[in-house]
Amino acid sequence: MENRLNFASDYLEGAHPVILQRLMETNLLKTPGYGVDEISEAAREKIRKACEAPEAEVHFLVGGTQANATMIDAFLRGYQGVIAAETGHINVHESGAIEAGGHKVLGLPQKDGKVSADTIREYLENFFADESFEHMVIPGMVYLSQPTEYGTLYSKAELTAIKDVCKEYNLPLYIDGARLAYALACPENDVTLPDLAKLCDAFYIGGTKCGALFGEAVVVPKKGSIPHLFTTVKQHGALLAKGRIASLQFDVMFTDGLYEKMGENGIRLANHIRQELLNKGYTLAFPSPTNQIFVLLEKKKVQEISDKAILSFWENTDEEHSIMRICTSWAAREEEVEELLEVL
Amino acid sequence: MENRLNFASDYLEGAHPVILQRLMETNLLKTPGYGVDEISEAAREKIRKACEAPEAEVHFLVGGTQANATMIDAFLRGYQGVIAAETGHINVHESGAIEAGGHKVLGLPQKDGKVSADTIREYLENFFADESFEHMVIPGMVYLSQPTEYGTLYSKAELTAIKDVCKEYNLPLYIDGARLAYALACPENDVTLPDLAKLCDAFYIGGTKCGALFGEAVVVPKKGSIPHLFTTVKQHGALLAKGRIASLQFDVMFTDGLYEKMGENGIRLANHIRQELLNKGYTLAFPSPTNQIFVLLEKKKVQEISDKAILSFWENTDEEHSIMRICTSWAAREEEVEELLEVL
Amino acid sequence: MENRLNFASDYLEGAHPVILQRLMETNLLKTPGYGVDEISEAAREKIRKACEAPEAEVHFLVGGTQANATMIDAFLRGYQGVIAAETGHINVHESGAIEAGGHKVLGLPQKDGKVSADTIREYLENFFADESFEHMVIPGMVYLSQPTEYGTLYSKAELTAIKDVCKEYNLPLYIDGARLAYALACPENDVTLPDLAKLCDAFYIGGTKCGALFGEAVVVPKKGSIPHLFTTVKQHGALLAKGRIASLQFDVMFTDGLYEKMGENGIRLANHIRQELLNKGYTLAFPSPTNQIFVLLEKKKVQEISDKAILSFWENTDEEHSIMRICTSWAAREEEVEELLEVL
Amino acid sequence: MENRLNFASDYLEGAHPVILQRLMETNLLKTPGYGVDEISEAAREKIRKACEAPEAEVHFLVGGTQANATMIDAFLRGYQGVIAAETGHINVHESGAIEAGGHKVLGLPQKDGKVSADTIREYLENFFADESFEHMVIPGMVYLSQPTEYGTLYSKAELTAIKDVCKEYNLPLYIDGARLAYALACPENDVTLPDLAKLCDAFYIGGTKCGALFGEAVVVPKKGSIPHLFTTVKQHGALLAKGRIASLQFDVMFTDGLYEKMGENGIRLANHIRQELLNKGYTLAFPSPTNQIFVLLEKKKVQEISDKAILSFWENTDEEHSIMRICTSWAAREEEVEELLEVL
Repeated sequence: MENRLNFASDYLEGAHPVILQRLMETNLLKTPGYGVDEISEAAREKIRKACEAPEAEVHFLVGGTQANATMIDAFLRGYQGVIAAETGHINVHESGAIEAGGHKVLGLPQKDGKVSADTIREYLENFFADESFEHMVIPGMVYLSQPTEYGTLYSKAELTAIKDVCKEYNLPLYIDGARLAYALACPENDVTLPDLAKLCDAFYIGGTKCGALFGEAVVVPKKGSIPHLFTTVKQHGALLAKGRIASLQFDVMFTDGLYEKMGENGIRLANHIRQELLNKGYTLAFPSPTNQIFVLLEKKKVQEISDKAILSFWENTDEEHSIMRICTSWAAREEEVEELLEVL
Repeated sequence: MENRLNFASDYLEGAHPVILQRLMETNLLKTPGYGVDEISEAAREKIRKACEAPEAEVHFLVGGTQANATMIDAFLRGYQGVIAAETGHINVHESGAIEAGGHKVLGLPQKDGKVSADTIREYLENFFADESFEHMVIPGMVYLSQPTEYGTLYSKAELTAIKDVCKEYNLPLYIDGARLAYALACPENDVTLPDLAKLCDAFYIGGTKCGALFGEAVVVPKKGSIPHLFTTVKQHGALLAKGRIASLQFDVMFTDGLYEKMGENGIRLANHIRQELLNKGYTLAFPSPTNQIFVLLEKKKVQEISDKAILSFWENTDEEHSIMRICTSWAAREEEVEELLEVL
Repeated sequence: MENRLNFASDYLEGAHPVILQRLMETNLLKTPGYGVDEISEAAREKIRKACEAPEAEVHFLVGGTQANATMIDAFLRGYQGVIAAETGHINVHESGAIEAGGHKVLGLPQKDGKVSADTIREYLENFFADESFEHMVIPGMVYLSQPTEYGTLYSKAELTAIKDVCKEYNLPLYIDGARLAYALACPENDVTLPDLAKLCDAFYIGGTKCGALFGEAVVVPKKGSIPHLFTTVKQHGALLAKGRIASLQFDVMFTDGLYEKMGENGIRLANHIRQELLNKGYTLAFPSPTNQIFVLLEKKKVQEISDKAILSFWENTDEEHSIMRICTSWAAREEEVEELLEVL
Repeated sequence: MENRLNFASDYLEGAHPVILQRLMETNLLKTPGYGVDEISEAAREKIRKACEAPEAEVHFLVGGTQANATMIDAFLRGYQGVIAAETGHINVHESGAIEAGGHKVLGLPQKDGKVSADTIREYLENFFADESFEHMVIPGMVYLSQPTEYGTLYSKAELTAIKDVCKEYNLPLYIDGARLAYALACPENDVTLPDLAKLCDAFYIGGTKCGALFGEAVVVPKKGSIPHLFTTVKQHGALLAKGRIASLQFDVMFTDGLYEKMGENGIRLANHIRQELLNKGYTLAFPSPTNQIFVLLEKKKVQEISDKAILSFWENTDEEHSIMRICTSWAAREEEVEELLEVL
């Protein structure tokens, strides 16, 4: 087995042990399929409470690409596309899942992974001012990631400004929270789950990268606002027969604040790494306060450490330098972090 | 919690305990994502051995609808459709997942859930004899289920005859093995995994209904015969970040013949139920030798037992009678079966 | 060139001479593209008047498959399918254009090409009574053809009954009028253009088979009821740059009742053929009162006449007999009809 | 009717008079539908000769968006996207027709509407060098426009270089020739029809903007290289029932070099306008040698002339200036051009 330190991603391990324990305890219970069981209902209720959204509809899907493709398809009509940062996950790393559903991703300029309310508004103003806009894809919703693909965060003020643009143009706002635990646990963050429930027409609370075996909890704050969402989920191959296997994990994570606690572990260690890297004179490529650290390294350095630690290659900046990603997680351990810092 | 006997389906419980144990043991291992880890590779190798298909490509997907939509999309060009029994799962209970991928399901007449080689051949002969066939959807592959949605089995002779038609018309053959464990464990069955690997261009070995928490192992006997299948899997939202969570379950199920053993439990108890029902004078609606039993009941009887046992409603045959489905599984226990028989 | 009599279809010739004359007269006018020109607006106004639908939105598309695919896509959400007779054009002869748009055609049993209100209602009742309906394609609209593919007609009473079912289930009703001129000109017909505008959420008035070079006028009686239909039309490749080329033809056809007059020619000659065939002892396969005549012929007879007249093969009924289609049209001439009757 | 000079586009008028005359002469001929008639075959043969491609398959479609959506769908598998200039018509002005077919447009940086072989090669090198490329849309073909949307031309050397990249990466090359007549008639052009037939896997010869009522001739130099293209055309609603109405126009345009002659009229007048504009001190925005002229105007000038001449708005460059497009065509007349020059 692998002996190297591994900071390549936040989906290296299985799940938080309490999740496995709960799977054990409930294993031989017989429950109806497709998420209409008591465990799923209990998990939904906990999420509703955490979001202060008592009317919310909650669906437990398997993964992020699936959740995005399903929800974007649920929101858009055939003639519409989805506004996203050019660097948005749906625009880059989902193998065209959105286009396979018939929709164009309308990629907008971003900074550190974030698209601003002004950028969106300007785009929309220009779009509808164009005499030939009806010959183009009509913008039909806004997709954001919190944290972004670059580990950065939208502030509550920024999200509110984006929401205002959305309202003005009657566009649903959808947020991809694949790494939401790390946002929620971040001192710099001022966007809570209730805020998301107020601002978004739908968002998902990430499980896979935040301590679950797999699973993403899609929250639709206004119940019934998306007709036949169950069927759309099924059509996208996203409906688990044993629905409770996913929901149970959220039930555990939304008991006693476990979800935020797991995020805190990732953040604390990431902050430590960031601080030490800066102390050692390294340059950070993006101002990410969450569990992803993007560090500029000489290529020969990358080569040098590659037999001791696994980082994730992000991109080359020039002939001699690369940006490498270091990822902490709910499962990262202090000792490993120290070893990594020694290696660097 | 529910006190009634529950024979509604074969996905009521979690997973075989050995699977959970293995999840525990491996939980904190760090492995790369997306199925390129050692556990996944080991599971693939065991499946290749069981199938006597050393070159097979194996992908671990999450569920049946997803596996079908992904593979049918992988096989077909835009102008093609998929031949299936009218009663085929893809034609009825997948919320239009195949059509959402752009393909028509070409439903053919069936008997007890099975479509015959003759029916397929006749359809194809007529199709290509029609002067206007180019104005219709071109048949591009054949989809079968083993066991079928009615619990019946194709014999090796029947599958071979269908394969011969497929060869003649250059159509890939794909088999949905959602409940394959129960076929393999059935005394009446003469189609082995190696047979499937020889006869099919792809098939999947069902996990969800056969003892796993979730998961279906798609087997493509000829490696590389479907270009960029990985990307198609990803595009369908069917690529697990923590790929090993699915593959590990197959690793366990393909160790020491566990997969067949779990099937045997379902079959033994189903056969017992069938025999007793016949002894009691009940009529069975379909000649299914696997873990699904379709029994004709008076509606008042259905009503009468509904507070003691949960069966699955199949269809009404007339004003006074319904077909109800009784499902056993890897997890069914003898005592429950005896209690059910008393209730009936 | 071909010397045989040709009754194979109603799209053998070009267009009514007045259409060509008008094309000549207007040829060098400069008008803006995409249907926002004065000619198109005039044609729309004439159609609105003929339909007694002063608020109607009218789009001029190129062909029938295109019009159907566009409008069905405009009406349906991703999780919905379209109810149609099993024999409906969209279910058989459009190469899967509807499925390519992501939608299942929900084919219902028919008689002589017609699906009844009772059949639709029963289907819907059963569908929504099924506990697992959310796992299936949700019916989202009703598609009918007037006349049907078998040349038969819905009566006003029949259409009204279907509309009532549609209302009850909140389903748009859409009618394919590829051969509508022949319906309107038929003595047996009691469904007028204003009736269609009252009963339908959209329908199209066929040009291609009724005297135009090409073109179908889609009528949406309630303006704006389908948002961004212009963009959907464009997305389907159905927006003519020189929009007036299509609309001008409708302008001509809706001047001085030309559309109905062309239909009358087809109907009068078809009725004459039908009467003579019955006099000669032939059997008609369907009770079609419009311009398509389906006659049962011995195969040797078919062979015998094949060097004198071109009919259209419909289907074999047994080893020795076929149903052949004879088609009259706006352009058919009396002499040809007499010659055909001599041949038969 | 409109009294202003109109240079807004090249699809303002009907068709070249000879086309109308030929429509008249052939109007009452009876020919089989769907393009299998003698007129269509004759037109195909003329196009094959002009392209020196005796084995070419030729399909007559209705419009550009339709031709592009159909052909791109015919070339690509589900997991593939199409490389195009960011400014390519398919990426901007086709209402998402490509995405509606399930495919991402992979927009690359361009200069004056042209994407270079180097840009494409660099993109492909980086793409396949990326470890996670299988999580992205796989490039599956290259789309170019000749002339481009900015009126510029690829040279034979440039196209050959692009073709070399395509060969290396096994990508079909497809060229959109909506305004091809103006390229062919341009002194600066060195790419002939036979060159296109040699370099492309498919391309289309534009009719709509080059003198036809409508219609685009898709040329596939290697017959049969795209299986069941007829069915794909039909599925896209692009198959004309009266196929000859489109093909006849190409038969006329490819008789006695009419196609190039019409192009020459547009080019001669455009060159005259360009020369005079430069003489008057105007700035041209793009170095387009074809029938589109992009001139930088002060907004107040635009306003000033707007009651005398209709130009086409292209974009604002700053608060006070706009780029306006002047379009000549096969039908433009010298007098009008002189009047326009006076106005400017």
